Amino acid sequence: MPSTTTVPQKLTTVDQYKTFLDKYDTFLLDCDGVLWHGSHVLDGILDTVKFLRENGKQLVFVTNNSTLSRKNYVKKFEKLGIHASEKDIFSSSFATAVYLRNILNFPKDKRVFVIGESGIVDELKEVGIETCGASDTGVVMAHGDFGSIEQDPTIGAVVCGFDININYRKLAKAFTYLNNKEQNAHFILTNDDSTFPAPNGVFPGTGSLCQPLVAALKRQPMVMGKPNQPMLDCFFSNYHTDPARTCMVGDRLDTDIAFGANGNIATLMVLTGVSTEEEAVDPNQPIKPSYIIESFGEFAKVGQE
Amino acid sequence: MPSTTTVPQKLTTVDQYKTFLDKYDTFLLDCDGVLWHGSHVLDGILDTVKFLRENGKQLVFVTNNSTLSRKNYVKKFEKLGIHASEKDIFSSSFATAVYLRNILNFPKDKRVFVIGESGIVDELKEVGIETCGASDTGVVMAHGDFGSIEQDPTIGAVVCGFDININYRKLAKAFTYLNNKEQNAHFILTNDDSTFPAPNGVFPGTGSLCQPLVAALKRQPMVMGKPNQPMLDCFFSNYHTDPARTCMVGDRLDTDIAFGANGNIATLMVLTGVSTEEEAVDPNQPIKPSYIIESFGEFAKVGQE
Repeated sequence: MPSTTTVPQKLTTVDQYKTFLDKYDTFLLDCDGVLWHGSHVLDGILDTVKFLRENGKQLVFVTNNSTLSRKNYVKKFEKLGIHASEKDIFSSSFATAVYLRNILNFPKDKRVFVIGESGIVDELKEVGIETCGASDTGVVMAHGDFGSIEQDPTIGAVVCGFDININYRKLAKAFTYLNNKEQNAHFILTNDDSTFPAPNGVFPGTGSLCQPLVAALKRQPMVMGKPNQPMLDCFFSNYHTDPARTCMVGDRLDTDIAFGANGNIATLMVLTGVSTEEEAVDPNQPIKPSYIIESFGEFAKVGQE
Repeated sequence: MPSTTTVPQKLTTVDQYKTFLDKYDTFLLDCDGVLWHGSHVLDGILDTVKFLRENGKQLVFVTNNSTLSRKNYVKKFEKLGIHASEKDIFSSSFATAVYLRNILNFPKDKRVFVIGESGIVDELKEVGIETCGASDTGVVMAHGDFGSIEQDPTIGAVVCGFDININYRKLAKAFTYLNNKEQNAHFILTNDDSTFPAPNGVFPGTGSLCQPLVAALKRQPMVMGKPNQPMLDCFFSNYHTDPARTCMVGDRLDTDIAFGANGNIATLMVLTGVSTEEEAVDPNQPIKPSYIIESFGEFAKVGQE
């Protein structure tokens, strides 16, 4: 089991790549910065994915983005030329559905109030959980409308993800349900990224959008996505892979590598994204990957020998 | 100058009322819990207001609510039977306008991006400051719309108040302007009340609604409203009353009384609202009013002698 305090091993030769690959059967792969940048797939990725799958490795794509269902992620992957089926995709919205169904045994007679997009609604529907709230967009509210926001005893949880159509009515309803101590509804956040990158700049993310509820309720949500551990617990509860032979691959120390390291699985950091090798080996920086490699596309070289 | 650590003096007799009134010329009055509850004016208030004014006292109504301009507050006061003119009302939106004009000397060629309602827009207009953003309501946004959110070099400040039509577009624009380090726009919050009471319950307030910006920017706003001191600084910069002869009257220790005490003016706590006499005299509770009275309506008795 890798320790977070040891010095990371840099993989630089094909022999080292082989030895590394022999140790793991399953790779959890962060996407942006590992597989692609925006809509540009990185060098060697397509060949690496093909080679690893041909050699019996399981690749699971892990994303904090809750806005798409796995069904729609498959389409996004296909567009980029990477074949994927739904079982290869582990998103924070699917993880939330798994959590509600497998871990919380969410009651059949309760509904989930969603601040979020179709990814959450579709994944909850897929596991048989009824939702409400997500379609309440584009409304113009007046101060006389507060009377229309009432308690709803059918709400068993509030799930918040990224919602580009978040509004006061949604926040006020979520607050009303969660502020009812007797109702004791779960408060779940799909991920706590404070910002996210769009093509023309950085914008407020899910971790920021939920803050009105946190401040008004003085209550913290259960957070699903990387680097939080519920996402990894849900992964193992759903995939049943051997943690000792599972490796998390990512480009960010504070999310991807922390996610794997905190969950006591091996971690491989790639240098094609946000974090640098200098940061990874800095003795004052506490999060250490087990391994470092220039890019995930390097593994294609093993198949070319 | 009253100390915040002394024991409050409880005023119970007409003689004590007279002695108290002789010490002050100006009373800053919190409204809800002091003058009225919802739409019910408290006993003795109308007579007290009349008596104090006839005796040359200046009454200024202080409110954190930023949604109405002073012009519209006057109408609200008239409906409740209390005569007031614009100069008698000191709201967080007016205070924000005074702050931008008198204290920041806000540049004539810059605009203020407003997350808020007409109270802010109207008060800024009144002092000659151009605004934008507040009318951007009821839009349905798609992920493809991020490209439409761009830097705007004309923005010199973002002012956030309560906005029942807050949406992602407003938050994303405000974030974009404030995240531009070179632009160095001011970030001003009208007040930081995390919730506020509506007739059918408590709902998220301005202090909660601005939290997506605080979290995404990792930057705190300048906060105007009670109990923060900018509101009192703006009061004195606008009214020029003698602080030694000015008394803050309110029902809440944590907002009204803290507001006056931190600003080193006298404070009178009334027992017709949120805080209790027990809380006020509790030695473990650090915020102490200078005086306590059962209700502000008691002063009518001085006039009836």
